[in-house]
Amino acid sequence: MTQLRFALAQIDTCVGDLNGNADLILKYARNAARGGARVVVFPEMTLTGYPIEDLAFRATFRRAAWDKADEMAGQLKQEGLGDLYVVAGTVGTAPGSDKPRNRMVVFHDGVVWAGYDKHFLPNYGVFDEFRIFSSGERSLVLDIDGVRVGVAICEDIWQDGGPVAALATQHVDLLLTINGSPYEEGKLHARYDLAVRRAHEVDAPVIYVNQVGGQDDLVFDGGSFVVDADGTLLERSAMFVQALDFWDFDTESTRQHVAHIQPDLDADQEVYCACVLGLQDYMAKNRFHGVCLGLSGGIDSALVATMAADACGGEQVWGISMPSMYSSDGSRDDAADLADRLHAHYDIRPIEPLFASFQHELSLEGVAAENLQARIRGVIVMAYSNARGVLALATGNKSELACGYSTIYGDAVGGYAPIKDLLKTRVWELARWRNKVAADGVTLGGVLDSITTAPDRARAQQAPIPVSSIEKPPSAELRPGQKDSDSLPQYALLDQVLAAYIEHAHGRADLLADGFDERTVDTVMRLVDRAEWKRRQYPLGPKVTALAFGRDRRLPITNAFRE
Amino acid sequence: MTQLRFALAQIDTCVGDLNGNADLILKYARNAARGGARVVVFPEMTLTGYPIEDLAFRATFRRAAWDKADEMAGQLKQEGLGDLYVVAGTVGTAPGSDKPRNRMVVFHDGVVWAGYDKHFLPNYGVFDEFRIFSSGERSLVLDIDGVRVGVAICEDIWQDGGPVAALATQHVDLLLTINGSPYEEGKLHARYDLAVRRAHEVDAPVIYVNQVGGQDDLVFDGGSFVVDADGTLLERSAMFVQALDFWDFDTESTRQHVAHIQPDLDADQEVYCACVLGLQDYMAKNRFHGVCLGLSGGIDSALVATMAADACGGEQVWGISMPSMYSSDGSRDDAADLADRLHAHYDIRPIEPLFASFQHELSLEGVAAENLQARIRGVIVMAYSNARGVLALATGNKSELACGYSTIYGDAVGGYAPIKDLLKTRVWELARWRNKVAADGVTLGGVLDSITTAPDRARAQQAPIPVSSIEKPPSAELRPGQKDSDSLPQYALLDQVLAAYIEHAHGRADLLADGFDERTVDTVMRLVDRAEWKRRQYPLGPKVTALAFGRDRRLPITNAFRE
Repeated sequence: MTQLRFALAQIDTCVGDLNGNADLILKYARNAARGGARVVVFPEMTLTGYPIEDLAFRATFRRAAWDKADEMAGQLKQEGLGDLYVVAGTVGTAPGSDKPRNRMVVFHDGVVWAGYDKHFLPNYGVFDEFRIFSSGERSLVLDIDGVRVGVAICEDIWQDGGPVAALATQHVDLLLTINGSPYEEGKLHARYDLAVRRAHEVDAPVIYVNQVGGQDDLVFDGGSFVVDADGTLLERSAMFVQALDFWDFDTESTRQHVAHIQPDLDADQEVYCACVLGLQDYMAKNRFHGVCLGLSGGIDSALVATMAADACGGEQVWGISMPSMYSSDGSRDDAADLADRLHAHYDIRPIEPLFASFQHELSLEGVAAENLQARIRGVIVMAYSNARGVLALATGNKSELACGYSTIYGDAVGGYAPIKDLLKTRVWELARWRNKVAADGVTLGGVLDSITTAPDRARAQQAPIPVSSIEKPPSAELRPGQKDSDSLPQYALLDQVLAAYIEHAHGRADLLADGFDERTVDTVMRLVDRAEWKRRQYPLGPKVTALAFGRDRRLPITNAFRE
Repeated sequence: MTQLRFALAQIDTCVGDLNGNADLILKYARNAARGGARVVVFPEMTLTGYPIEDLAFRATFRRAAWDKADEMAGQLKQEGLGDLYVVAGTVGTAPGSDKPRNRMVVFHDGVVWAGYDKHFLPNYGVFDEFRIFSSGERSLVLDIDGVRVGVAICEDIWQDGGPVAALATQHVDLLLTINGSPYEEGKLHARYDLAVRRAHEVDAPVIYVNQVGGQDDLVFDGGSFVVDADGTLLERSAMFVQALDFWDFDTESTRQHVAHIQPDLDADQEVYCACVLGLQDYMAKNRFHGVCLGLSGGIDSALVATMAADACGGEQVWGISMPSMYSSDGSRDDAADLADRLHAHYDIRPIEPLFASFQHELSLEGVAAENLQARIRGVIVMAYSNARGVLALATGNKSELACGYSTIYGDAVGGYAPIKDLLKTRVWELARWRNKVAADGVTLGGVLDSITTAPDRARAQQAPIPVSSIEKPPSAELRPGQKDSDSLPQYALLDQVLAAYIEHAHGRADLLADGFDERTVDTVMRLVDRAEWKRRQYPLGPKVTALAFGRDRRLPITNAFRE
């Protein structure tokens, strides 16, 4: 035999759903076998879902995962798939201990075969693996029909030394890696560069299979691939959708065969797809069929509503316009126009009488009165959510969240916040991009292709977002003539300072050295630091940048440092 | 010289407040010198505050801490304290790298002297130190007037091996440990047992200095102490207050001198003090002078209001009664009675007209209508907070939080939640305890002694909580005749299941083996799992048990595992 066929099974699992994940593995294994594969490779911790966080500590969970793996091995054999090598991830325990491990197993011939435990445990950014797992100590080379296949799990290829260094001295024919690598803008290229380095190190092709799908605040983008020892890209799967792709390893040639290579997505498309997939999977895995949100006529709620319509169909979106005495006619028209374009439900609930009732009791002024308006809206949005069983969406962007320019328990209410990791300038870019692809009549790609039903697909071809929502100066409309720029620096400037302060952890001296003026720096730092308590209570939303708020950036609320 | 006098400086620092912390160190160093000390010992990361979390990554912070340490060394010398050995903690960096380290330094003779870097980095429970620090590799023995003093930082004595094992072979006369050990019930004894083990290991007395004070969700209880190699307790400082205590090491005797030993607090007193200190420090360090909260007449809000009055004085507490059509007269009377006993402000804001206004628009039924009532109350509480600049307190207990038996954006609003880690049965116990000590006329101890002003002290001697708030069956009063027991198992049973499921991570099979009936187990597990999203948005509150909600228990929201 000169060809060994691998199937790259890039699937969307759910944390804790052992039955559902096992069924998905079986389904893809069947299809892989049908396609002639000798080996089918699944992502990191396929059976358990990933990341399992402190669920790792529950002994009943580890036992159930182990029993399920045994059952699967039997089932594969029973179905005549005993010859297939099925490479998947699950939770294990260290020998002679109950300390959990991040494990790769191979199902073959009716048993759970060779196991490899992840060596490098990421404990930075969003990762807490040193908290829950102990490290594996041994490298592993599988012999599959005489082909020597070295293995590694995700972080093992991000660090020098360890198992890959060990494999480099063991003459492997292939390096197989299973991954749960969360999306952030530009990460695809980082992964590719890394795989090329490891391919060079072991002098063999690298197969990189990544998970796809949303899990709480993480979105896994898929984009699995194969690279040759010389860096040639040999295969690439699609991003943001499940995929089963095949690649043949030629055991007798020094040059490997190039299989199908999916084209790059552009940067806007990537981020947009990540937000939609994050929302869609949060809904599916938590059993929500629809969403509700306040529609102000502004750009943030317009973009979120559009993403929601792309995620679950416009007819599952309840848009609520809640005008006050300070809302402009233009804003109301834009909200209605948006709902119409999205085929979304649209209700108008004026808050003026409610505001008057509260003010009769409370006589609030200034910011307290502004917050009151936002909180009345929050109560209404949650009433829709409770009464209809739909998911409330918070529409805040990252610039707002950074500066605390939102009302806690007001516009901040919700179970999911699709654009919380998008700076305001990025919100505008994505809105323009979404309108443009609609106008161009191009297909949207990624998750958007796979999920929209036929009528939605037609809708998706119309520019969803009213131009005036994109072009008008942003305003919270909580007092007459209010503009965001009354309280905040212009967004073009603000977003640059935020990127430096938040993503690059620049302090005051660094920001001044970056060329930002003192007044802006002091304003932004003060606003960001003071809003930490609000961010802690903000809903989850998808991470799409190198540093998102949440477990990616763990700062104390009580913190007097101002430099 | 036969005596070497140590001062144990158990101080309350604030994260990031380099100036304030330095001033506090200088003040205690002066007093230590005045008391004849040769060595004054401060807690872990004194200068920076603890834990600094991702602030460790900010280069300007590390530089500022280093500059401040240099400045302090000069200032100590200038004040004639150059001869004193001042042992304190700060952030450092690994040699030739910018990876942060958890460092002990000694100020002496105008310079920042020997440095020791923490070896074992806790990365479990509430700790993330492996995330932010790299490990020190070397043990350190200080020579102070010929006395060989080995050193260790907190976790270094919790793990076998490492620096203490190294010191055991180096014939030290003393082991000095600086600590930031957060409170949980019973931990004092665990620390003491551990120190005895280490004292035995190095065959020398152990000095254990712990931080005191609240930092976000952690409360440090102080309770510093000295134990001899044979396990004899030689000194113990008070819990929950700053302290400067002295202990003399006799260089010529094999039996060490016993200094002052503070008596034990009882378990209720410990937990109550922890909650009060947590709240008090959250207020002080975030510059709040008062609090507001809804007073329902129930036990939870009564206990929280009492803790608040103990923390900041009754005249800084705004209690708001917000009766609905379902509120009993008894509840209103109890709320008014409580406010009166606490000398708190008391306003009545009936929500019926507001509820009618919303219902005119929304016509809600069932749970949605119940939540509406709670959310109207949330809006009012936040209006008080905004208008008066006071801290809103959430009054939920751990049983409620576990089961999701609260309304998000309703009774869950607030910046701090003083009893979120107390099970309902514990809430009753603490209420009875608080009334009892008042009735007995005993001083309250700990933080309660130090903080109350003279008029408050008089007030503290009156039983604050109306007996009927303690004795009546708990009810949310959101529909006619509603009782908690309609929706939840009886608290005596519920709290046992919760302790097993949450603190001990027992799964379904384990809980059944524990003897709980199937129906209760399934109900509780379902409620707890479904409420994860609400807990994520809940305010901070003090950890007082072995496992609190929050960073101590990191479970995915999206999680299909039901066993």
